[in-house]
Amino acid sequence: PTETGSTMSMSCIGYIGILIICHGLYFQDGERRVDYILTYHIKKPSSSRSNRQSSRFTDNAFTRSLRRGTARLGRAPTPQPRGDPEVASQDHSMDYHVDDKRLHREEFEGNLRDMGMELEKDEDTKTPGVGFVKIHAPWHVLCREAEFMKLKMPTKKVYEMKQSTGVGAKINTLVNKVTEPLYPNVEDNRTHNVKHLSYMFSREKQHLFDLSDRDSFFDSKTRASIVSVIVSSRSSMTVDWRLESETIETINYSRLSQFIHENHIRNVFIVDLCLLYEEWASYSVFYKYQPIGLVRKYFGEKIGLYFAWLGLYTQMLIPASLVGVIVFLYGCATVDDNIPSMEICHPKNNITMCPLCDRACSYWKLKEACGTARASHLFDNPATVFFSIFMALWAAMFMEHWKRRQMRLNYEWDLTGFEEEEVSDHPRAEYELRVMQKSLKKEHKTQKVLIGVTFAIVFGVILYRISTKTALHMSNNPTTRSNVRLTVKTTAAIINLVVILILDEVYGAVARWLTVLEVPKTDKSFEERLIFKTFILKFVNAFTPIIYIAFFRGRLVGRPGSYLYVFESYRMEECAHGGCLMELCIQLSITMLGKQLIQNNLFEIGIPKLKKLIRYIKSKRRSFQEEEREKKLQRYETDHFLEPFAGLTPEYMEMIIQFGFVTLFVASFPLAPLFALLNNIIEIRLDAKKFVAELRRPVAARAKDIGIWYNLLRAVAKVAVIINAFVISFTSDFIPRLVYQYMYSPDGSMHGFVNHTLSYFNVSNFQDGKEPMDPQHQVEMCRYKDYREPPWSNTPYVISKEFWAVLAARLAFVIVFQNVVMLMSDIVDWLIPDIPKDISLQIHKEKILMVELFMKEEQGKIQFIDSMMPCGGKEKRNNHAPIARSRSIPHTHSHTHANNF
Amino acid sequence: PTETGSTMSMSCIGYIGILIICHGLYFQDGERRVDYILTYHIKKPSSSRSNRQSSRFTDNAFTRSLRRGTARLGRAPTPQPRGDPEVASQDHSMDYHVDDKRLHREEFEGNLRDMGMELEKDEDTKTPGVGFVKIHAPWHVLCREAEFMKLKMPTKKVYEMKQSTGVGAKINTLVNKVTEPLYPNVEDNRTHNVKHLSYMFSREKQHLFDLSDRDSFFDSKTRASIVSVIVSSRSSMTVDWRLESETIETINYSRLSQFIHENHIRNVFIVDLCLLYEEWASYSVFYKYQPIGLVRKYFGEKIGLYFAWLGLYTQMLIPASLVGVIVFLYGCATVDDNIPSMEICHPKNNITMCPLCDRACSYWKLKEACGTARASHLFDNPATVFFSIFMALWAAMFMEHWKRRQMRLNYEWDLTGFEEEEVSDHPRAEYELRVMQKSLKKEHKTQKVLIGVTFAIVFGVILYRISTKTALHMSNNPTTRSNVRLTVKTTAAIINLVVILILDEVYGAVARWLTVLEVPKTDKSFEERLIFKTFILKFVNAFTPIIYIAFFRGRLVGRPGSYLYVFESYRMEECAHGGCLMELCIQLSITMLGKQLIQNNLFEIGIPKLKKLIRYIKSKRRSFQEEEREKKLQRYETDHFLEPFAGLTPEYMEMIIQFGFVTLFVASFPLAPLFALLNNIIEIRLDAKKFVAELRRPVAARAKDIGIWYNLLRAVAKVAVIINAFVISFTSDFIPRLVYQYMYSPDGSMHGFVNHTLSYFNVSNFQDGKEPMDPQHQVEMCRYKDYREPPWSNTPYVISKEFWAVLAARLAFVIVFQNVVMLMSDIVDWLIPDIPKDISLQIHKEKILMVELFMKEEQGKIQFIDSMMPCGGKEKRNNHAPIARSRSIPHTHSHTHANNF
Repeated sequence: PTETGSTMSMSCIGYIGILIICHGLYFQDGERRVDYILTYHIKKPSSSRSNRQSSRFTDNAFTRSLRRGTARLGRAPTPQPRGDPEVASQDHSMDYHVDDKRLHREEFEGNLRDMGMELEKDEDTKTPGVGFVKIHAPWHVLCREAEFMKLKMPTKKVYEMKQSTGVGAKINTLVNKVTEPLYPNVEDNRTHNVKHLSYMFSREKQHLFDLSDRDSFFDSKTRASIVSVIVSSRSSMTVDWRLESETIETINYSRLSQFIHENHIRNVFIVDLCLLYEEWASYSVFYKYQPIGLVRKYFGEKIGLYFAWLGLYTQMLIPASLVGVIVFLYGCATVDDNIPSMEICHPKNNITMCPLCDRACSYWKLKEACGTARASHLFDNPATVFFSIFMALWAAMFMEHWKRRQMRLNYEWDLTGFEEEEVSDHPRAEYELRVMQKSLKKEHKTQKVLIGVTFAIVFGVILYRISTKTALHMSNNPTTRSNVRLTVKTTAAIINLVVILILDEVYGAVARWLTVLEVPKTDKSFEERLIFKTFILKFVNAFTPIIYIAFFRGRLVGRPGSYLYVFESYRMEECAHGGCLMELCIQLSITMLGKQLIQNNLFEIGIPKLKKLIRYIKSKRRSFQEEEREKKLQRYETDHFLEPFAGLTPEYMEMIIQFGFVTLFVASFPLAPLFALLNNIIEIRLDAKKFVAELRRPVAARAKDIGIWYNLLRAVAKVAVIINAFVISFTSDFIPRLVYQYMYSPDGSMHGFVNHTLSYFNVSNFQDGKEPMDPQHQVEMCRYKDYREPPWSNTPYVISKEFWAVLAARLAFVIVFQNVVMLMSDIVDWLIPDIPKDISLQIHKEKILMVELFMKEEQGKIQFIDSMMPCGGKEKRNNHAPIARSRSIPHTHSHTHANNF
Repeated sequence: PTETGSTMSMSCIGYIGILIICHGLYFQDGERRVDYILTYHIKKPSSSRSNRQSSRFTDNAFTRSLRRGTARLGRAPTPQPRGDPEVASQDHSMDYHVDDKRLHREEFEGNLRDMGMELEKDEDTKTPGVGFVKIHAPWHVLCREAEFMKLKMPTKKVYEMKQSTGVGAKINTLVNKVTEPLYPNVEDNRTHNVKHLSYMFSREKQHLFDLSDRDSFFDSKTRASIVSVIVSSRSSMTVDWRLESETIETINYSRLSQFIHENHIRNVFIVDLCLLYEEWASYSVFYKYQPIGLVRKYFGEKIGLYFAWLGLYTQMLIPASLVGVIVFLYGCATVDDNIPSMEICHPKNNITMCPLCDRACSYWKLKEACGTARASHLFDNPATVFFSIFMALWAAMFMEHWKRRQMRLNYEWDLTGFEEEEVSDHPRAEYELRVMQKSLKKEHKTQKVLIGVTFAIVFGVILYRISTKTALHMSNNPTTRSNVRLTVKTTAAIINLVVILILDEVYGAVARWLTVLEVPKTDKSFEERLIFKTFILKFVNAFTPIIYIAFFRGRLVGRPGSYLYVFESYRMEECAHGGCLMELCIQLSITMLGKQLIQNNLFEIGIPKLKKLIRYIKSKRRSFQEEEREKKLQRYETDHFLEPFAGLTPEYMEMIIQFGFVTLFVASFPLAPLFALLNNIIEIRLDAKKFVAELRRPVAARAKDIGIWYNLLRAVAKVAVIINAFVISFTSDFIPRLVYQYMYSPDGSMHGFVNHTLSYFNVSNFQDGKEPMDPQHQVEMCRYKDYREPPWSNTPYVISKEFWAVLAARLAFVIVFQNVVMLMSDIVDWLIPDIPKDISLQIHKEKILMVELFMKEEQGKIQFIDSMMPCGGKEKRNNHAPIARSRSIPHTHSHTHANNF
């Protein structure tokens, strides 16, 4: 790989910021490598105010630092319980003086040294105002922490994976050959026939591992994450100290990406990154699988899982969009055979409809709705019912497949025995601060109020939307031509989209603000609550207008002669003939496409570039000789200008909202999966580019699963079933058609359906001042879409029996659909085992091999002991249990074992 | 505890079979204790046929055994790959000769010895025909296996549990004092203030553990389960050998309970069992909590979990039955204020109803239904709607509580890091045999057919039931008096119960037979499939008649003048006025009570006693001097006459069916939780007695959860929501009443409801020959319960608008109820964290303490090394990282470590 590496590196150099490796990633001695770097701002003593204030505290801080210094000089390796947390919190609540900060920093660094880390400072950089602390973790620290973190490492023991034989193998080879071009050109990604057994690293079992090359045994991401764990938590066990350290960190330090580079493995490092750049972060390989193993190797498990998930999701979208397109084409093909729209468009059709608004509008002919009716059929045909069932099952399959993929990755990445790290359970420093300030109770009250306020905001937005949309429609209503109507709808949808995009950002900030006010106890719960809140708000934001169109628009219209009015003058808006499905579809497609194009691509590409530029300009302003110097900057200095890694939350959030679009209203918009697929193919490479070239390298985090996101996916999939049931039964005309066909149709066909859905209205029953001013037709009766008694019945305009029958059928359909689909999803869930069969077999096999290995070792030891004690050797032949007497060997206490470092 | 123990033991001796400990639980040398016993039958060479047949194979078997013997003599400790599996399977399919069996046995024992076990044979017992092999696992084997099994053992390190302070502590003390009598008198069960840290046992970390008393470090159940693991799997790694060993075992060996008893801890052992007997397996302590810790200590985690689950379930039934009784009392209290039944019972009520059967029956006055109507109100009032919502949430709470309890027990029992044992994933011997016989494919086909047959059987039973029940009713119908009716219903329900009880046993056998035919691959999947099948069949069996009554009876009746007929002559049965709820209630209570009384108590107490008696008599017949000898029998010989432990499946199954009764139809029978509670209070002690005194002590099995049962519980709870929704909306009159009150009632009250639900029928419209022969009243119009148009409308007897409105309301209620309750359950699920807060804090604390402990140890070692190397001591003062140079210490390969045995 070295050769390919070096040629590849040539093509990469100068392109990826991270790759310009010249010097400085070793300590001054050129031996110890840099595993982690902390940065801090070097400030000059500035304003007189802070100076005066701080002088009061300098003494205090100084004495404290002295006390601590003494403690450290005494070489007590465990951290000292701090005497006065009150002083600390007092300090915190005030402005830190520069000296005080420095002392804190020094104390923190002293603590790191106590933990065995080796540090080197570099304040004299070419980047003014920024100091760097380079950290090196020596071998024994790595070993110790790897043992505490229960890292699984590959052992020397190698075993051959079973190859399938016979026909299966041949098919396998064939499939592999066909799919060959789909695999990235990464050594790592090919199927191996041998696998190293993995075992939890432990210094007592060192002989199991291949430690011939200590520098490469722990790879760069592992080293960095070990240091990160020490920096963030292990450096002290007592809570009050941790609080202080965290305080220091948030004020003075910001983590910089860590570069792990050394001469003898430089090529490997470059190869990895170059491979990632060429085989992953490039649009030209969009059709290929991702080199997930390599992503994990470079970025850690958490980010690896995200991309694996995104990859699987995109893959699963292929069949969904295929079926979606087929369903859409079916709609196109059958549009001319659709009897209801044929009836509407029939030249002999002479049905006069009631006016769509008061006074200004006139009567109109149903024929005018011909275009809408035909278009509606594209999304409102029996195939969409099938498609929404299909998509519900698809969602269940997707979940199951993800569980399996996750399990497989867990196995491949040696995470099978791994439990969530306790680090994430640490109480957040801020929480403890709040507890100290005793302000928690008050916050709890305000939190409740605020949750209420949030809901009020959400409902307010809904109301606002309804009214503005009504107003918008009203003013355009006099022009009743359907083309104009469509334009109005489209522009309304675009306005909606803009509102959604703006509110999305607002809601993101609101969610963060609310979560901060809640003061969750641990970082993990903070993250989960933030995600949950953001999800709820963004989801409501994205889907409120759609839900309004699907379920409320045109429902509460009233009837001719007694329309419902909002604000006494605006009539509630009606849907065009053919249901609101058409409008729903327009709204959906515009929202989805718009969100994807504008939010994802524009924001995700544009904003970071802009930010980088701004930061660059800012630092340029400070010293004007920057340009010449820039090329001589240390690696970590150029990286300092990169955007820091902000977590995977925005990426997941975007995808889950998209998943909502794909599943929630799929009954009305079968092309959604196709749009999602096209977007995601770009999205993967876009994210990859961002991670490889735009962001500082994040600290590798271990993770077994995608956490709360899986639950949110499940929730969306569940809600999707119900919403689709309602869309089919209430928004589309599917159920009325069925009811007509089987209950009312004289000949079992759909002929007469349109007539059946229209009620009669006697124009003499118009309220005064509501009748059309300029009736183009002279009519006695006009028709309107509803199931009501005709004017000549005993109870005119009362809801008719047909209405109740159709309603009952609709509700029955909802119950049946919901329960059948839920049952089918459960069956899918139950039929597909969570752990792939080959993986469970392999895990089992590995366990057996491990036990066998230990047993052999055992035997080796016994023979060794036996050979040492000739008296024991004799008995052996008579007895099948020669081990039994080893009890008599003097018990050497392992405390006195010679250890390996 | 020794004192209490010895006094207690006196009261126990002679009562529990297991306790008569005299001698023989040590090997002959009196030092090595017996950890496990295998039994086998010693047969005399009997029939000439098998003799002749076997002589052909004696040679074969002999040579094989010779070959193996040689291999073993060569002292190759790993098992030899066997040459000819075909021969083995051939052998298996024929009758084993006695000699062959003995050789197999000897080989098996040899293998055990190779694994380090020590065996002692005892063929010369007082029980003729049974041989015993006593197994002792020496210390080093225990250590080795404990390490492989990753057992967590308590370390020397002790830490104090945080006591809550202030008001919380006071309340806690008060609560503890009040609930004091509820706790069993078991030391183990009290809250401790200190806890031993636990850590995965490893021989390298022996210094962590308190090994001062090697004999009691691993307790009896752990020793036994270690031996059990070796016997069942570890004794060989190759599959073909395991197959043979299993074969031997199933034919010749049967596991006997193991008695772990020794002089110096005899008291502890007796105390445990006596405590269990007195504080657990006794009806007098029915009001107390169970000593779960002790149960686990004696029987292992799996059985401990069952009783913990049963205990929690019973506990949770207390509030449920309380609310149920209140709801029932509310029904009783409001029966006189119920307007519909008042109207029916009103003396001025003069409504003439249409006859209930053809010709034989006459018209009847609605007043006659007064009693039924009043009784119906007890179970059909708004409170039952509340109660079924309550019970759905109760079920969700129960699940959540169980998850938490399980987590707590996992923590207390040191199972937190434990993964399911691989032993259970071993392919079943039978499966491998079938694979060898290549009969698997055929079986797979028949399996599918058979699953189809099962469903056919189930539906056949349903049909059979409907027809017989109809017939039964028909023949009794001429006597239309409601009292007689009630008797008929009751007897019908009892007949049903008997059928259910008989079919229950049949289905159990069918399920086992089907599963055997399926040939699942592993023991675990065998068990899960068997459970699933049995569950489905028994569930369908128990609930089919109830579902029939709830949802089908009285639905497809037709109307006067055009009734529906089965077999052309039997009219479908109607329900009495007031809905079928009353009948449903009778059926439910009889089935539930009957099943509990007969099946659980009679079968569970009676049958085992009977079996024991039969076995005793059988062995008595063999030798007539038995009686005198009996008292001198070895412990394991008396235990040989006990019933073997057959798994927890029947116990769980019984409880889950009961859970079904408690949740599924709770809307119609609010007293179900009370009955369940009363039954379970007895059930716990009954099961406890069985485990302590009636069964052989089962091999302790580790388990983290209750496995498939939890999923089945969830499924039942889910189905319960839907069924309750349908019971409320379709079986009860709740929705029609609401619809009447808010849509049709002139004054918003319930007055006139009865009249509204009755349609008119003109008696002249009776079909010929169907009119009553002996009309006691002369009538023109009779009434019947349905929503149909009156005879004078344009469309007489057609389903009316009210019907559709009520139907729509019913369906809407189902949708709302189902989704609201499911949402609430999900919220309960989401709000209650799965891991109790204190436990997660403790786990976190323990992890930190463990790391601290290791760090201290580390420092100790470093200081030791430093003191050994004076040159390193100097540098220390200048450098904060003195450890860094320890790299230069020569690397002692741990292969050459002196090990501790």
